[in-house]
Amino acid sequence: MQDKLMLMIPGPTPVPERVLLAMAAHPIGHRSGDFSAIIGELNDNLKWLHQTKNEVLTLCVSGTGAMEAGIINFLSAGDSVLVGNNGKFGDRWAKMSRKFGLEVEEISAEWGHPLDPEAFRAKLEADTEKKIKAVIITHSETSTGVLNDLETINKHVKAHGEALIIVDAVTSLGAVDLKIDELGLDVVASGSQKGYMIPPGLGFVAVSDKAWKAYETATLPKFYLDLAPYKKANAKNSSPFTPPINLMFALQASLQMMKEEGLENIFARHKRLTQLTRDKVKALGLPLFAPDDCASYAVTAVAPDKHDAEAIRSTMRKKYDIALAGGQDHLKGKIFRIGHLGFMSDRDVLTAIAALEATLKELG
Amino acid sequence: MQDKLMLMIPGPTPVPERVLLAMAAHPIGHRSGDFSAIIGELNDNLKWLHQTKNEVLTLCVSGTGAMEAGIINFLSAGDSVLVGNNGKFGDRWAKMSRKFGLEVEEISAEWGHPLDPEAFRAKLEADTEKKIKAVIITHSETSTGVLNDLETINKHVKAHGEALIIVDAVTSLGAVDLKIDELGLDVVASGSQKGYMIPPGLGFVAVSDKAWKAYETATLPKFYLDLAPYKKANAKNSSPFTPPINLMFALQASLQMMKEEGLENIFARHKRLTQLTRDKVKALGLPLFAPDDCASYAVTAVAPDKHDAEAIRSTMRKKYDIALAGGQDHLKGKIFRIGHLGFMSDRDVLTAIAALEATLKELG
Repeated sequence: MQDKLMLMIPGPTPVPERVLLAMAAHPIGHRSGDFSAIIGELNDNLKWLHQTKNEVLTLCVSGTGAMEAGIINFLSAGDSVLVGNNGKFGDRWAKMSRKFGLEVEEISAEWGHPLDPEAFRAKLEADTEKKIKAVIITHSETSTGVLNDLETINKHVKAHGEALIIVDAVTSLGAVDLKIDELGLDVVASGSQKGYMIPPGLGFVAVSDKAWKAYETATLPKFYLDLAPYKKANAKNSSPFTPPINLMFALQASLQMMKEEGLENIFARHKRLTQLTRDKVKALGLPLFAPDDCASYAVTAVAPDKHDAEAIRSTMRKKYDIALAGGQDHLKGKIFRIGHLGFMSDRDVLTAIAALEATLKELG
Repeated sequence: MQDKLMLMIPGPTPVPERVLLAMAAHPIGHRSGDFSAIIGELNDNLKWLHQTKNEVLTLCVSGTGAMEAGIINFLSAGDSVLVGNNGKFGDRWAKMSRKFGLEVEEISAEWGHPLDPEAFRAKLEADTEKKIKAVIITHSETSTGVLNDLETINKHVKAHGEALIIVDAVTSLGAVDLKIDELGLDVVASGSQKGYMIPPGLGFVAVSDKAWKAYETATLPKFYLDLAPYKKANAKNSSPFTPPINLMFALQASLQMMKEEGLENIFARHKRLTQLTRDKVKALGLPLFAPDDCASYAVTAVAPDKHDAEAIRSTMRKKYDIALAGGQDHLKGKIFRIGHLGFMSDRDVLTAIAALEATLKELG
């Protein structure tokens, strides 16, 4: 039915009407006092959301752009990095790192399984010469619905002492309790079309003092993604280049809504929706792709054994106006993914499950 | 007065209500057939706007990001480039080129004056070894309101035969008749918050076959700004990374409006508004910063000799709710700039001039 689509994919996520309307306001000049006041509010609220005193920088990029900034600003060609790879995004960060001439060692796990923290421990402990400059981890692997054990991996990075920890938190930020300062995470990248509840177009990078120190000697060439001018501008509630003004209006509204709900409530809601989704999918007799103990709070992957996943997706889309995500790369047709990230309530999950049950009956 | 602001700066430019409302629609999945159809329409209409058969690529970046993509995709560290520098943006492209290890020779003119095509001819003719790999030109220098003589400079580039011509058309595209194919322009970069009549957040790069050939041997590292994946995705009406979906809804609406108006009419309107602005400013006894024969069709810089430019701007903003742009860098306080780019009509110019007259009276 026209304009009746319900988004249950892991991004873009549904956008509250209040946010859409804020975004539809006429733009104002980005060098004006009025806009500077908005940037000031955003910077404060972004620190609140990130649970950090670190600078959180806002860029006009997708999540991939934010991760690129998070990598190239703190490293030089030839630097050794450990990259966790258990899905499409981990794989992307390994590829990206190689493009910039980094010496990449991958620690892999099969798609649908979590990274093994022990493998990181072994590599980091063996590195007595402290050659490993950074460990790059995807916290919530969107392609499979696996939440990697960032806390334990981070402990091993901290024991190493030298390496930075660079985190793709694109589908965990605003869904999973991620205490950046408490854990001492050096670089945390995220994107707007996820837990932030706004459309795509903004990328965020939170940067620790240790990472800024590494910045001083990092030599990869950069200009648009050079984070130092963003930091300098942030201090003046400004931006180095023209920012996506209307998306920042949207961000202002969404961060206000998130503050009204409260971090604890947001995290509890995502946890509850994840549990609800998993319970209901199991009750329908469908196998879950990722184990319970490493379930992402953003997205649940389902691996139907009796049906083609694309046939289920297609009926859900055409008959029930619900968009689910498909499997990526070799998982296409094998899994479908239910997003429960951002502006999502229990009702949404029940709705999707009811439609899924009807779809399964229909497909026989 | 609250919410009464009228934007007459050279970006962001005013956004039509039809475009704002299109942007406020709920996002849809960027991998859906519905969104693919939108990308297809956008690609066709972007080619129409650019007057080219070349691929026009859409990135989630500001204009600076689009220019960076336009430079780093086609060059390698150590390559020689000629960069025209007669304002803040020309200066930025020279700085950016150096950041990426290019051998930059600047051809400069004083701010407010146009680049001298003869200087380009001399350098290009002297380069018998064909070491110059690219000439980088800002078409409309937003900081001063000067339109550089791209056609003549381009003739000299074509006579050289080897060098690419890379054009910052950020405030000329959609305002000045720019026949990309007829002129054989290799790389043309632009940004959404200008002639496109939509908010900032999208950058565009039009790329010629000759530039794609240069791409094959260019070695600067790149990932998010690597244009080959964008080209590949374009052919399938897709995008390599999550695109700014709602800004693309806005672009769809604005390009439809532009097609309804017609290119000839759009260019004629910008020329007429430029002439009107200049005539009226002169009639008020205020000196224009750039000469008539190189006037940008996007923005007119005024250099008041009896008043502080910032005082004029401040009264215009506070009493008449009209935002003008100030001077940048050493021109701060010396000039103000009236934007007449994008969704602008004769009425807007008359309004600004009436308020400017009242402001001058007030300031004595």
